[in-house]
Amino acid sequence: MGEVSADAVTLDLLREARETVRSSPLGVINTPMVAWCQTTLPFSISCNIQIKLENMQRTGSFKIRGVANQFARRPKGGRFVTMSAGNYGKSFAYASKHYGSKGKVVMPETAPESRSTLIQSFGVEVERAPTSSLIDVVNRCVREDNMTFLHSYDDLDLIAGHASLGMELLEVMPEPDVVVVCCGGGGLLAGVAAAIKLSGCGKTRIYGVEPEGACTMYRSFTEKKPVGMDARSIASGLAPPFAGRLPYELCRRYVEGIVLVSDEEIAAAVSALYRSGFVVEPSGSAAFAAIVNDRIPELEGKNVVCILSGGNIGKDELANFPD
Amino acid sequence: MGEVSADAVTLDLLREARETVRSSPLGVINTPMVAWCQTTLPFSISCNIQIKLENMQRTGSFKIRGVANQFARRPKGGRFVTMSAGNYGKSFAYASKHYGSKGKVVMPETAPESRSTLIQSFGVEVERAPTSSLIDVVNRCVREDNMTFLHSYDDLDLIAGHASLGMELLEVMPEPDVVVVCCGGGGLLAGVAAAIKLSGCGKTRIYGVEPEGACTMYRSFTEKKPVGMDARSIASGLAPPFAGRLPYELCRRYVEGIVLVSDEEIAAAVSALYRSGFVVEPSGSAAFAAIVNDRIPELEGKNVVCILSGGNIGKDELANFPD
Repeated sequence: MGEVSADAVTLDLLREARETVRSSPLGVINTPMVAWCQTTLPFSISCNIQIKLENMQRTGSFKIRGVANQFARRPKGGRFVTMSAGNYGKSFAYASKHYGSKGKVVMPETAPESRSTLIQSFGVEVERAPTSSLIDVVNRCVREDNMTFLHSYDDLDLIAGHASLGMELLEVMPEPDVVVVCCGGGGLLAGVAAAIKLSGCGKTRIYGVEPEGACTMYRSFTEKKPVGMDARSIASGLAPPFAGRLPYELCRRYVEGIVLVSDEEIAAAVSALYRSGFVVEPSGSAAFAAIVNDRIPELEGKNVVCILSGGNIGKDELANFPD
Repeated sequence: MGEVSADAVTLDLLREARETVRSSPLGVINTPMVAWCQTTLPFSISCNIQIKLENMQRTGSFKIRGVANQFARRPKGGRFVTMSAGNYGKSFAYASKHYGSKGKVVMPETAPESRSTLIQSFGVEVERAPTSSLIDVVNRCVREDNMTFLHSYDDLDLIAGHASLGMELLEVMPEPDVVVVCCGGGGLLAGVAAAIKLSGCGKTRIYGVEPEGACTMYRSFTEKKPVGMDARSIASGLAPPFAGRLPYELCRRYVEGIVLVSDEEIAAAVSALYRSGFVVEPSGSAAFAAIVNDRIPELEGKNVVCILSGGNIGKDELANFPD
């Protein structure tokens, strides 16, 4: 993907991707957006917060949006390889089964057994490798097995697919003042921000939220180039080792700023959302954590959209979170 | 309440109660209704199911609606007593604190410690008693301590308050074909059914759902009078020992039928809803269980509303449910 520039992401491209996602045989859901009306939280700012329930999405996270567009634009019957122990791997496996394509997910040795079992249940092969050599295994599959690498965040088709989420939210709230999105590699943030800005919402402020211990995009903004770090967070989906290059370029262009939340704040957000009736994983709760911990500037009186990006958390895992 | 007849429940009364609930200082939420769009369940009937997210409601269940109307229509500074180990007790305690009224909840000895701690945290007294003598303790409080008994399901003001849920759903879906509501003592079912029928939706079919092991309303329909039983279910909120008299009369008039679900079906519904991103307690999942297990007649092509009536389930408790 080294050559794709942010200029390639046009409104026409995003509209086309949106149609592809909408009509995808994978059954991507136009997820509901509902008013957040609880006042039991220690959050005194008066604003209209709408939460986009991407935790209801098929496969449990937004990743299916980008995957739907990636698979639609690759040859049928292709053989694809990716690396992911998380939501991308789950969506990739779901799509592989649906499209009848041979797929392989390269996964860190440290990933939970349950995740590889789930991915294998879709008929997709799993190969485990040390984290440092994941990319070597992928390259071997590309070279020796003639597989096509699908990137889990730094990919034009994927980002264009994720942008469908931004298009949808504008249908419900045409000119939001503020949109808050979690950021891992940056694919969702880039897609949503591009969709909103290219749709003409010049005044909308879009913020990315990263965990303090996995702030590659934040550092990339500071260093003015996409950088990596030894990322660690309970929000594992937000802790890839590098910020994506294309996501970085799009975020620089369309995103107001990156704010950080602690793992404790993320855990508290998971619990608060649970008490309000929603199953949201740590990665999916980061945007909400940023809002209720007052990390987003000037919310008073504003129309705010908060994306709950995923709900893939086991009941046993959730039981460990604070009450 | 022995003298109140079903004729007392008029559209004017329900409209007034709806305004009381809407403007209640307790902050009752007009909960979202969203499309159920998952197809991962073994449920092949093609219909438009909207789920009413009462699990987002303040205090975690619909009970606050009725409580808001009860408290608004009693003298300020009154002293109230009730018996409940469940959602009614929580809403009652929340309202007592807000109104600054002295309250007492009489609770079965078998109720979990966490529930009495929660209720006491609102400044409400808890008295524990054997199940068989709960009503004796209540009567003693009325007689000796001059307290006013608030019933948790067989009460006109309560039912009128619950009816606000029916009014709200008609604003989103003006003429539903089918509405499915869980049934314990019958207060919610009676209120919602009265609201819908009295609003002029003569063709709407309204179904109550009870656990097989706690089917007092089902038996009351058969025996043509409100009856009791030794009710047992994992959906403890749906297992009071008697069907309410006023609820029974209203249900006879406005409800199409009562259907039953097993505890296993309820547990599976809790898990399915969890996987779809929602925290719903067993009692709150019964209506959903009835729909996906095909207990409701003639759903094909219909506009269906399913009420998820509450989300009060601990993370530790949820962990025991099947995957």
